[in-house]
Amino acid sequence: MAETEPSLLVVSAHAGDFVWRAGGAIAAATLRGEKATVVCLSYGERGESASQWLAGKPLDEIKAIRRDEAAAAAGALGAQIEFLDLGDYPLLETPESIQKLVDVYRRVQPTVVLTHPLSDPYNGDHPAAARMALQARVLAQAIGVANSDGTYPTKDEIIGAPPVFFFEPHQPEQSDFKPNVLLDITEAFPLKRKAMECLPAQKHMWEYYTALAVRRGVQVKRNAGPNLGLPHDTMGEAYMRYYPQVTGVLE
Amino acid sequence: MAETEPSLLVVSAHAGDFVWRAGGAIAAATLRGEKATVVCLSYGERGESASQWLAGKPLDEIKAIRRDEAAAAAGALGAQIEFLDLGDYPLLETPESIQKLVDVYRRVQPTVVLTHPLSDPYNGDHPAAARMALQARVLAQAIGVANSDGTYPTKDEIIGAPPVFFFEPHQPEQSDFKPNVLLDITEAFPLKRKAMECLPAQKHMWEYYTALAVRRGVQVKRNAGPNLGLPHDTMGEAYMRYYPQVTGVLE
Amino acid sequence: MAETEPSLLVVSAHAGDFVWRAGGAIAAATLRGEKATVVCLSYGERGESASQWLAGKPLDEIKAIRRDEAAAAAGALGAQIEFLDLGDYPLLETPESIQKLVDVYRRVQPTVVLTHPLSDPYNGDHPAAARMALQARVLAQAIGVANSDGTYPTKDEIIGAPPVFFFEPHQPEQSDFKPNVLLDITEAFPLKRKAMECLPAQKHMWEYYTALAVRRGVQVKRNAGPNLGLPHDTMGEAYMRYYPQVTGVLE
Amino acid sequence: MAETEPSLLVVSAHAGDFVWRAGGAIAAATLRGEKATVVCLSYGERGESASQWLAGKPLDEIKAIRRDEAAAAAGALGAQIEFLDLGDYPLLETPESIQKLVDVYRRVQPTVVLTHPLSDPYNGDHPAAARMALQARVLAQAIGVANSDGTYPTKDEIIGAPPVFFFEPHQPEQSDFKPNVLLDITEAFPLKRKAMECLPAQKHMWEYYTALAVRRGVQVKRNAGPNLGLPHDTMGEAYMRYYPQVTGVLE
Amino acid sequence: MAETEPSLLVVSAHAGDFVWRAGGAIAAATLRGEKATVVCLSYGERGESASQWLAGKPLDEIKAIRRDEAAAAAGALGAQIEFLDLGDYPLLETPESIQKLVDVYRRVQPTVVLTHPLSDPYNGDHPAAARMALQARVLAQAIGVANSDGTYPTKDEIIGAPPVFFFEPHQPEQSDFKPNVLLDITEAFPLKRKAMECLPAQKHMWEYYTALAVRRGVQVKRNAGPNLGLPHDTMGEAYMRYYPQVTGVLE
Amino acid sequence: MAETEPSLLVVSAHAGDFVWRAGGAIAAATLRGEKATVVCLSYGERGESASQWLAGKPLDEIKAIRRDEAAAAAGALGAQIEFLDLGDYPLLETPESIQKLVDVYRRVQPTVVLTHPLSDPYNGDHPAAARMALQARVLAQAIGVANSDGTYPTKDEIIGAPPVFFFEPHQPEQSDFKPNVLLDITEAFPLKRKAMECLPAQKHMWEYYTALAVRRGVQVKRNAGPNLGLPHDTMGEAYMRYYPQVTGVLE
Repeated sequence: MAETEPSLLVVSAHAGDFVWRAGGAIAAATLRGEKATVVCLSYGERGESASQWLAGKPLDEIKAIRRDEAAAAAGALGAQIEFLDLGDYPLLETPESIQKLVDVYRRVQPTVVLTHPLSDPYNGDHPAAARMALQARVLAQAIGVANSDGTYPTKDEIIGAPPVFFFEPHQPEQSDFKPNVLLDITEAFPLKRKAMECLPAQKHMWEYYTALAVRRGVQVKRNAGPNLGLPHDTMGEAYMRYYPQVTGVLE
Repeated sequence: MAETEPSLLVVSAHAGDFVWRAGGAIAAATLRGEKATVVCLSYGERGESASQWLAGKPLDEIKAIRRDEAAAAAGALGAQIEFLDLGDYPLLETPESIQKLVDVYRRVQPTVVLTHPLSDPYNGDHPAAARMALQARVLAQAIGVANSDGTYPTKDEIIGAPPVFFFEPHQPEQSDFKPNVLLDITEAFPLKRKAMECLPAQKHMWEYYTALAVRRGVQVKRNAGPNLGLPHDTMGEAYMRYYPQVTGVLE
Repeated sequence: MAETEPSLLVVSAHAGDFVWRAGGAIAAATLRGEKATVVCLSYGERGESASQWLAGKPLDEIKAIRRDEAAAAAGALGAQIEFLDLGDYPLLETPESIQKLVDVYRRVQPTVVLTHPLSDPYNGDHPAAARMALQARVLAQAIGVANSDGTYPTKDEIIGAPPVFFFEPHQPEQSDFKPNVLLDITEAFPLKRKAMECLPAQKHMWEYYTALAVRRGVQVKRNAGPNLGLPHDTMGEAYMRYYPQVTGVLE
Repeated sequence: MAETEPSLLVVSAHAGDFVWRAGGAIAAATLRGEKATVVCLSYGERGESASQWLAGKPLDEIKAIRRDEAAAAAGALGAQIEFLDLGDYPLLETPESIQKLVDVYRRVQPTVVLTHPLSDPYNGDHPAAARMALQARVLAQAIGVANSDGTYPTKDEIIGAPPVFFFEPHQPEQSDFKPNVLLDITEAFPLKRKAMECLPAQKHMWEYYTALAVRRGVQVKRNAGPNLGLPHDTMGEAYMRYYPQVTGVLE
Repeated sequence: MAETEPSLLVVSAHAGDFVWRAGGAIAAATLRGEKATVVCLSYGERGESASQWLAGKPLDEIKAIRRDEAAAAAGALGAQIEFLDLGDYPLLETPESIQKLVDVYRRVQPTVVLTHPLSDPYNGDHPAAARMALQARVLAQAIGVANSDGTYPTKDEIIGAPPVFFFEPHQPEQSDFKPNVLLDITEAFPLKRKAMECLPAQKHMWEYYTALAVRRGVQVKRNAGPNLGLPHDTMGEAYMRYYPQVTGVLE
Repeated sequence: MAETEPSLLVVSAHAGDFVWRAGGAIAAATLRGEKATVVCLSYGERGESASQWLAGKPLDEIKAIRRDEAAAAAGALGAQIEFLDLGDYPLLETPESIQKLVDVYRRVQPTVVLTHPLSDPYNGDHPAAARMALQARVLAQAIGVANSDGTYPTKDEIIGAPPVFFFEPHQPEQSDFKPNVLLDITEAFPLKRKAMECLPAQKHMWEYYTALAVRRGVQVKRNAGPNLGLPHDTMGEAYMRYYPQVTGVLE
């Protein structure tokens, strides 16, 4: 419906989240020649780097390792990446942090936004990131809300109302994650796999998320109907659309 | 995603329901040159024809009036229509009635299905129609489920897994109707209006459902974002997608 | 809002249910001089008469005992009572049974309806009774739905849209019973206690439901606010209003 | 049930919200001769004044305009109004802001409270206002919670447990708004219309909210039943009661 | 808590369901030396035997094949199996069918019951089986409900209140399946695998359900905590407990 | 499943909460010879000490009284107690407060955690305490999250994933409290009663919570089944398990 150029924005609580959960959607976008930007709110330096802490590494080194890995993974997916370094465990929702995200929205002008779902009983940073992503999106729409530098946006700098999709949490049912969109990532999967392999510390996750892609792929086929001829090896990712879909065609 | 020719099937509990609630979607499909079929499970002869009963008309005449009006409205929308005459108030969910719907599915080979939502505290026939539409859809997929005449379907006669959309009930919030699809029916609306005007006994509804189309049109614009340049007079219809959307692109 | 004379209809699955769960509301109505009618769909002869079966009594005798007790309890509450004898465990929702309830609605012309809630994992007859009460209420509104004798109702015989309240099930939380109305039954409680004492086989329930009235009474006070001066011994009953309240004053 | 004098308190996130969403209830109260007080937490200066920002007006002027308009609208409704000027987009829930609301509660001694619902995916200030209104209401009940000036309240200064009603958000279904109270505002509507016309910058909303009042009016009639003789032009507003209703009569 | 001998009853809509979904729990029980009984309500002859219909086999032969496979699978799990042959697609909930299940309950005297969850938008037979299993369980508790042969049960023949667990449907999130019990089936898994291999027509499912057991095993470990030393290859099955757990120890 | 020594941690918003709501579970644990620790986030000095404020006592004295009473009650239950003195009405969720709880978790090494449920429309401190207890539990698991003194925990100091149970709020249905665990506290009840009697200012609660234990005891019996021979005077407490139960046996 929109005339504007596609621009995908992914808001990730920690440095690795976007790879496991949305790597397919990101690669699918860049394979179509579209722009994709990942913003990592933190490096996951405290809560998701246990092996490095056990190895006795200092905080700064851990952050640098996580940053490099995430940058490599984003590169494999063909996406831009930026780091807000807001700290994790806990990720705090301050007005200043949200303001930084407002600036990102206005710069990136996303036509689609991906982030965590609003519930996750295993990790409070994930819903915090989602709340921040949603709040900043609304603030970025308002011409009366200033930028970080105190200037006010022009009419072109405020954003529209891009759809928001929540990507899959680690334990979907416990996080009230009921997918209403199943994305076919068959073609994009090799890039996602390559991106996963940029995260060597979580090698056991490579197989886990490959198996998940197979599982979601089976559901893609089930929900598309048997006679559509989807190939046997369809791979998938699951999403929850947050706002109603606007369309001219029911399909 | 499908290669098959578009075919819209609308399962309506009573003779008029499809006009008020899904007339825009139907007209939008036929304006695109697609096939649309309405199946009315009953005429709404007992529960939705109060003025005719008050006028002392006999049952058969009431059914004939309702049939003619519905046929005219379908014509205005460019759709085929058929009547199963299963009786209303209550609409009974017998195996035989559901079997008739199975035959319809196999004949129509729908790529999209529209019907009532699963809850309506004001009218039990509406959720009954929805349950029948859903059950028949699943049965029609199975090669081991016979047709009404006892023959078994061929591989081509069984259906795939067409998406199902619930159209809007009269009191949406009370019927747990939370739209996740907003359909732009601006171009189709004149046909919908014409179809509504084929139902003269409910003249007060013409304005009511025009106002509703305006209201849903405002929401189309709100959810599409301010800078997409949708015209001021956008008209809309609201739907609930029942199964997850299968797609290759998040948008 | 209505000008019509108050008329309370209580639809009870088994012979005793109305006493424990709605005795206070019934007595409160009759103490105000209003008409109250209880309709018992069954005697609870199979599912709620264990002690009599253990004592070796035959089915007919058990039904007679239950009928007499329920009639005595209704008398203590000042209410009319009728028995449809539809059988229990299971209570079957046939069109004929629902038609009998339609006749009751048209005869009683209720301005308020009380029945069981729609969920009860411990007793399927209770939600069955609720579904029947709700379906019959809608059918009784339609001038095109005949009476049991095949005649059609006059405009005066059809009913309006009386509010429906679900009374409290035995295990409220498990039955998704979230009260939105707390009824002060302090004055009516002595009559409710008297009615309970008409059911000697369930003597252990007298204390149980007295304690529940105290508990709900504490909630009446809590929700009315501390400074309203409700007496210390306020007794209560909890209800779920099913349709939205229509009012001219928010209070 | 209460002996205390009626006093309506409306907690509004922005300067205009109370007009569109609760103007009917406010006017109905003042037409009965009751006291009504509106407290605007912010002027909506950043998030709801786009046309003025586009016109290049400075912040202070925008706030003054919004203040004057809101004061005029409150006057048209016969209500008192006060402004806490807490800032919007985002409205921050600080302890100090909530304390100010505690003072308001104790001064106004409300018997009924109206505010926004707890969910609104389109505007975070609305649920923030609701949370503040609810939290301040509970704090204002406690004799151990000091006033802003450090003094402790007397027994007369603490408040009771006034019922809370959420008024209708802009996109009710998306905000999980399921009305359980439908208010007849037919007589009050002319005053509401007059109040809406005090907000000239949102002229397109006048018709939108008039149409909504018609729509809710139809539901008032539907839920009150056909034979109550409500006039054809009944106007309505929808509310969600948050705490259970306490009553002596089921009706 | 119970002194009675453990007896597991599994109510399966179709001949194969119990293998994929509950094979681990069954094998775990029989490995502990406990009794396990599977009751298949139908053979899944129409809805779940597509390859055999495509191969042109007649109905009776399909039923025989399914019966033999299911019997072999039950044997591999160490469980008894019986077939009620009630027909599938659709599985009809008649009073007679439910009565047959009542007899089963009274004969088997289950201390634990496993069945399908109450929702499955992809297959109506599954929730039908669950409703039947739940209704029969309540009826079997009542001394006033006769057996199929018209005799009444003795006090010893009626059953208690065995806990009910729903096993995992094919698309858990779409079926509102939120597991509240994660079962460690590591030791039982080889038997489950052997049972799966008794169903050669669904060979592609062997890997699918092995991968699911790995996935649920990861969740077993996550929810048990990292320092419990569960082995890396923990396998799991997910369940929803329907009634509250009764216990003397929180753990 | 765990080899670690049982250690019960109870996180209580105010000084008295743990007695009324979890006294039975605490006493049951200590009667089994297990360790139990209560941590009171505040004394409930402002929100739950009305009678003392009315008597004109100063804040410090009220806190001292509450502390002594709570310590006596904990003693009666055989539990350790500590007080974080974070203030109440409102209880603020600051990073510092949560850090203090992290320290408690690491010191106590709980195998089971009890706290308030996540919703309570009558008292915001209760869900605040629950959120703090849940967040601190997750932070305490992470080796990269420092202790209050800035040191990092060893591998032995971080905690596992102890199950969390929410205890019963004052108005359970209004707080969306649907118990999924019913605890038999018959043997522990005399100690709970003794602990309640350590709180003389709330003497009217003694009977209220004794009646509640009877009520929950009836539900213990109902859900355990009639033929388990539980004694007539079974006493109970209700809980909601937050994370899925991990087990090797379905029972």
